[in-house]
Amino acid sequence: MSDRVVLAYSGGLDTSVAIGWIGEATGAEVIAVAVDVGQGGEDLETIRRRALDCGAVEAYVADARDEFASEYCMPALKANGLYMDSYPLVSAVSRPVIVKHLVAAAQQFGATTVAHGCTGKGNDQVRFEVGIQTLGPHLKCIAPVRDLALTREKAISYAEKNDLPIATTKKNPFSIDQNVWGRAVETGFLEDIWNGPTKDVYDYTDDPTFPPGADEVVITFEKGAPVALDGKPVSPLQAIQEMNRRAGAQGVGRIDIVEDRLVGIKSREIYEAPGAMALIAAHRELENVTVEREQARFKKTVGQRWTELVYDGQWFSPLKKSLDVFIEDTQKYVNGDIRMELHGGRATVTGRRSDTGLYDFNLATYDEGDSFDQSNARGFIELFGMSSKVASRREQGLAGN
Amino acid sequence: MSDRVVLAYSGGLDTSVAIGWIGEATGAEVIAVAVDVGQGGEDLETIRRRALDCGAVEAYVADARDEFASEYCMPALKANGLYMDSYPLVSAVSRPVIVKHLVAAAQQFGATTVAHGCTGKGNDQVRFEVGIQTLGPHLKCIAPVRDLALTREKAISYAEKNDLPIATTKKNPFSIDQNVWGRAVETGFLEDIWNGPTKDVYDYTDDPTFPPGADEVVITFEKGAPVALDGKPVSPLQAIQEMNRRAGAQGVGRIDIVEDRLVGIKSREIYEAPGAMALIAAHRELENVTVEREQARFKKTVGQRWTELVYDGQWFSPLKKSLDVFIEDTQKYVNGDIRMELHGGRATVTGRRSDTGLYDFNLATYDEGDSFDQSNARGFIELFGMSSKVASRREQGLAGN
Amino acid sequence: MSDRVVLAYSGGLDTSVAIGWIGEATGAEVIAVAVDVGQGGEDLETIRRRALDCGAVEAYVADARDEFASEYCMPALKANGLYMDSYPLVSAVSRPVIVKHLVAAAQQFGATTVAHGCTGKGNDQVRFEVGIQTLGPHLKCIAPVRDLALTREKAISYAEKNDLPIATTKKNPFSIDQNVWGRAVETGFLEDIWNGPTKDVYDYTDDPTFPPGADEVVITFEKGAPVALDGKPVSPLQAIQEMNRRAGAQGVGRIDIVEDRLVGIKSREIYEAPGAMALIAAHRELENVTVEREQARFKKTVGQRWTELVYDGQWFSPLKKSLDVFIEDTQKYVNGDIRMELHGGRATVTGRRSDTGLYDFNLATYDEGDSFDQSNARGFIELFGMSSKVASRREQGLAGN
Amino acid sequence: MSDRVVLAYSGGLDTSVAIGWIGEATGAEVIAVAVDVGQGGEDLETIRRRALDCGAVEAYVADARDEFASEYCMPALKANGLYMDSYPLVSAVSRPVIVKHLVAAAQQFGATTVAHGCTGKGNDQVRFEVGIQTLGPHLKCIAPVRDLALTREKAISYAEKNDLPIATTKKNPFSIDQNVWGRAVETGFLEDIWNGPTKDVYDYTDDPTFPPGADEVVITFEKGAPVALDGKPVSPLQAIQEMNRRAGAQGVGRIDIVEDRLVGIKSREIYEAPGAMALIAAHRELENVTVEREQARFKKTVGQRWTELVYDGQWFSPLKKSLDVFIEDTQKYVNGDIRMELHGGRATVTGRRSDTGLYDFNLATYDEGDSFDQSNARGFIELFGMSSKVASRREQGLAGN
Repeated sequence: MSDRVVLAYSGGLDTSVAIGWIGEATGAEVIAVAVDVGQGGEDLETIRRRALDCGAVEAYVADARDEFASEYCMPALKANGLYMDSYPLVSAVSRPVIVKHLVAAAQQFGATTVAHGCTGKGNDQVRFEVGIQTLGPHLKCIAPVRDLALTREKAISYAEKNDLPIATTKKNPFSIDQNVWGRAVETGFLEDIWNGPTKDVYDYTDDPTFPPGADEVVITFEKGAPVALDGKPVSPLQAIQEMNRRAGAQGVGRIDIVEDRLVGIKSREIYEAPGAMALIAAHRELENVTVEREQARFKKTVGQRWTELVYDGQWFSPLKKSLDVFIEDTQKYVNGDIRMELHGGRATVTGRRSDTGLYDFNLATYDEGDSFDQSNARGFIELFGMSSKVASRREQGLAGN
Repeated sequence: MSDRVVLAYSGGLDTSVAIGWIGEATGAEVIAVAVDVGQGGEDLETIRRRALDCGAVEAYVADARDEFASEYCMPALKANGLYMDSYPLVSAVSRPVIVKHLVAAAQQFGATTVAHGCTGKGNDQVRFEVGIQTLGPHLKCIAPVRDLALTREKAISYAEKNDLPIATTKKNPFSIDQNVWGRAVETGFLEDIWNGPTKDVYDYTDDPTFPPGADEVVITFEKGAPVALDGKPVSPLQAIQEMNRRAGAQGVGRIDIVEDRLVGIKSREIYEAPGAMALIAAHRELENVTVEREQARFKKTVGQRWTELVYDGQWFSPLKKSLDVFIEDTQKYVNGDIRMELHGGRATVTGRRSDTGLYDFNLATYDEGDSFDQSNARGFIELFGMSSKVASRREQGLAGN
Repeated sequence: MSDRVVLAYSGGLDTSVAIGWIGEATGAEVIAVAVDVGQGGEDLETIRRRALDCGAVEAYVADARDEFASEYCMPALKANGLYMDSYPLVSAVSRPVIVKHLVAAAQQFGATTVAHGCTGKGNDQVRFEVGIQTLGPHLKCIAPVRDLALTREKAISYAEKNDLPIATTKKNPFSIDQNVWGRAVETGFLEDIWNGPTKDVYDYTDDPTFPPGADEVVITFEKGAPVALDGKPVSPLQAIQEMNRRAGAQGVGRIDIVEDRLVGIKSREIYEAPGAMALIAAHRELENVTVEREQARFKKTVGQRWTELVYDGQWFSPLKKSLDVFIEDTQKYVNGDIRMELHGGRATVTGRRSDTGLYDFNLATYDEGDSFDQSNARGFIELFGMSSKVASRREQGLAGN
Repeated sequence: MSDRVVLAYSGGLDTSVAIGWIGEATGAEVIAVAVDVGQGGEDLETIRRRALDCGAVEAYVADARDEFASEYCMPALKANGLYMDSYPLVSAVSRPVIVKHLVAAAQQFGATTVAHGCTGKGNDQVRFEVGIQTLGPHLKCIAPVRDLALTREKAISYAEKNDLPIATTKKNPFSIDQNVWGRAVETGFLEDIWNGPTKDVYDYTDDPTFPPGADEVVITFEKGAPVALDGKPVSPLQAIQEMNRRAGAQGVGRIDIVEDRLVGIKSREIYEAPGAMALIAAHRELENVTVEREQARFKKTVGQRWTELVYDGQWFSPLKKSLDVFIEDTQKYVNGDIRMELHGGRATVTGRRSDTGLYDFNLATYDEGDSFDQSNARGFIELFGMSSKVASRREQGLAGN
């Protein structure tokens, strides 16, 4: 049997060309793998057939949308995963599920190598290759765009010469990656960071400047994950899709930042993640109601490290797993309803209720029913401030000499 | 000379009554101290006269607005100080500057005791008393509302009986604290956390639902602090005031959260901080452009601890000072312009430029001029992923047994 | 039925007197609770009878040594729990198991109050009371020594007057607490921190100055806990006891520090923990061999917080539980043998082997068999150093202007 | 002028051969740079002459011992820099000072390239190259052993063929790096991690098994750095040298660990650092006496990050600098005397005194003079435990349903 290469296949020009390109460069047979993580566009069957038409010996396609939503997006939600406090890890959480299918396909079809279409200066190459190294330590990785110098110009000329069933004319003004958790846009005129984004940058969200009337939604959570919208049960995937639709219609979840890439450079990125951003806002407030203070404070540190690891392509690392069990443990009581108003780019929590909350009206109220014994305060303050007070006496004593 | 008590005086009913109340309870003379931190309302001279009319032997008033903006709000901005990722420390940063004046007044007027009007279940009592213990370790603290059981009912009856020059009829539906950095509203029907805030809760911000046309502003920073708006030089105080006005008109900076108090309970709080929230958003993005990645990541940990300390009343603690020097060091190159669109509750960065930035177009671009050597990626990925890969081989080896 | 108080009973003078004292002060019946955590001294039956002779209506005694070793000391070992890098939490880990039995006894005997013998300036009062509040939120706490002002002088005079079956003459030069995890000594001439400890301070350890010949031990761990010594299976309790004996004979595990108490003061403490310190040293080195780098680095942060929480009496807090699941997850592969030489106060690891280790001879060796591809280094270094290099270019560029 | 290469020159075989080797491989002139960081061995003049004899066009030698001790070792002491709680960063702190001189020499002699003798699987290559990239962004780096495949066999044959004035017979059983801060030994039979170290591994320390009589020393610190030993003023360099001598004679400071290298592998390392380990133990205890609790707790996090950065070759990074200012701020009051007994491998603190300490006898004592008001404890405990108590009530309430 000749050597086989599994290729992460999108159905687009670059990876369609890569099928033949890899074959010619390596002499190997190519198995195209396409994974549906909610990116929209063509259906899997169309993509499958194109792969075969472009020369793949096999094509493996998978509808991973539910798996992606449940096992990749939900952990990101529980972690409140926002890289640099802003970016909901859109591409970062999709790479590991794709990697899982690539490695499974390599095993199924007896491939020794996995290929992806990333360039050599982005994060995704690291996410793919570290993931593949980890799940399939015996697999080799190649990256035609980076390692075989497959430029767009070469791709177009190759496609035309070989009469591949793929359009070659459309020049994208941006580089785009999208899935159900969000959409990422970069390059082009956005590389000048003084330029504001233009309207054509956006697709998942409508312009928040002229929104329709406000939309109120009640999101029900169990153990940190959404289980119902306005009382109607939903799967994780449905929750994200529905919130993408409703929050997207209000222009919620547009993000525009300069971001620190893992490879050491800063880049300018635009994201749209209406569902993710609205769900994270709701989840955070429900945590405020249900998670104990010290647990919440430390969870921020854990969440930051989780987010960095996932951003940095360490989804399958030992530390990531240990952080997951920590986070899971904190979600035990994150149950209840969040009422949220979606309007004009804002997703605003207006009410919260929980049977497992720690908000205690009788402790909190200044009205009748107050059960808080204020006489404890004096002793508390005295000892809470003791070490600072002793330090201050030292400073003043020394200054006085 | 009889014993003297310095009283943190607001000019309102409670503290006006406290002047006589403390005198009667302790036999001491009362010096009223009023500090203007931009809370608006009556002028200092009116307040000063009322204090004397209510029986204070002396009244010390201070316009601390510039001091507050420069030395208290600016550090909070540089720290991106948002407690629980939401609350810009409105009251928390004002207490230390008031404490400083209380302790100065105690020294000036020979007082042995400082009094404040806080209750026994909030954070502010801790901030006042730990601050006073620290700056004036020899001073005693009393809290008439908490320790002498001065309830509102008793206050009204005392004021009427003694014919004090203060209105007693107005019953506030909420408890409010405000200064130039923001406004805090709590209690009343907000204690039911399923209730959304009503329109009368707000004062610093207009309703974002029906905003005027978008307002674009360019904020210029030097070393992490705003120094110009639209090219016009401003002081820190002016920057906050002007941004309060402009962002407030767009409904920017409304916050509604359940919050973990230092005394161990959860409470429901509404905040308005249009200037603070817009400035923090701008500052964060300028940091994204100008601060090195690892420095930025660790600064988040430092900023979280800084925020917790300030929230917890530890402004004058040794750790807070050490965190300050860390933060100050990170701001050395946080210079440049942020262009921001204020509209309908959103403060959106649309452009950034900096002579001291780390965004390098030639490293970032995918167009011509690219100076990034992609051949480094392979070796980087290999070693970056090495320890996870070795760990994974172990796991798979054991599973294979 | 009259009110009942459960008393943490040691069998010593203070708590023997407290039985009657509490009865007289509160009118309640007293149930004495004695818990064996390996503190040595009298047997439980003797203590039980004395409690009844001193007026207790019931006496509850429990041999909690195995429970303490397995469920309290082992987690401390897995966390490498050393407060201020030095103190192995000797008293801190024993309080929660005692609390558990106090609350169980309160339930069993229908008591509404729990009493303990701590003073008002130590950590143990906090550990007892926060633990009791947490496990038994409906229970009240009293502390006769602190709240009822039961001084030692009063105790002696009460015991003599009432002819209690307890010695009153022995004046301890120190305050001592001990259990199988270690021994804590404080007060007396140790309060002068320039004084070195005298020989009579120590009991668990022999003088390391003149040790017997070196003692070599091989400790076998499974999932982070010792399961065999020199190949002989041991329970956690046996492992600690045996290591106490062998490491104690060599003077291992003496600690002398100035320590930050939770109540805000610094105190001077002497500890002996030969078994704990030797086991922790062995465990750490086995972790070095078996835990992945990033997991190990973050575990230090988790271990520090775990240690602070346990020191601060938060054993039963939600955060402590979440940290436990994190730590447990990191111990999955902490299996293998550590060979250790015990001699003259030193517990020195001299060898380690593990079937689940991450040390890879072929990657590490500089001899034949080297499987590490050094050509990856250049690309790694280039990108690993990129963000610092870009920052440095900025600095030099600005300096050059 | 022909191209010039600055070479980090040790005087040993590899780098002596590298002089000619580089010349032949690159056509460039070689400038040898030798930096004395207290590694002992030959004097600088001998080394200088050998470099010229081996073909260097220039030789730059620098006695950097005081600079190294003051500006590199003292910061490590203030940070209590122990990687993985064990390794005092011996090689890690020496690389940056050598880099500084390499870059200075490159500038002085007009070189465009810097060469070092490290292999491709260790940490030092990263420390050299990231340091050089940072201080001299325009310089190229080469590593003959790694990049030009200069093996030891090739080096011996080259030296013999060219009749270089350097011994070629001595085969070192280990790879060794040493300086005044300590000594590092690796490879050879130590690569079998079950092997204990043999006696010939050690050079800085005598066998602790048969020590001379105990040696008592009083170390005086100012702002965290040693300034006198037994009352006799010393420079930082003298303090380290003298403590190396005295603690080394007692066998203090032997370390044997499996360590996580930056390049992703685990390696086995032996270190000797008698002075460093004794000074760190003394410094830590003086910090216990003089640093406020919360400052000390957070400083551990800062110190851990500092240590990781320095280990990872980020000495000149922006974050490292910001951590330095934090640490420096915490050392303001770290003044006073530590009395220490050195004996049989142990460096034991037996006394401490400080005019700027926070240990307050009157607060700490249980004897007469006690100024601690125990009545504050009850209120403190109540509020300190409040959030856990509320969380526990929830858990029990739910369990009860």
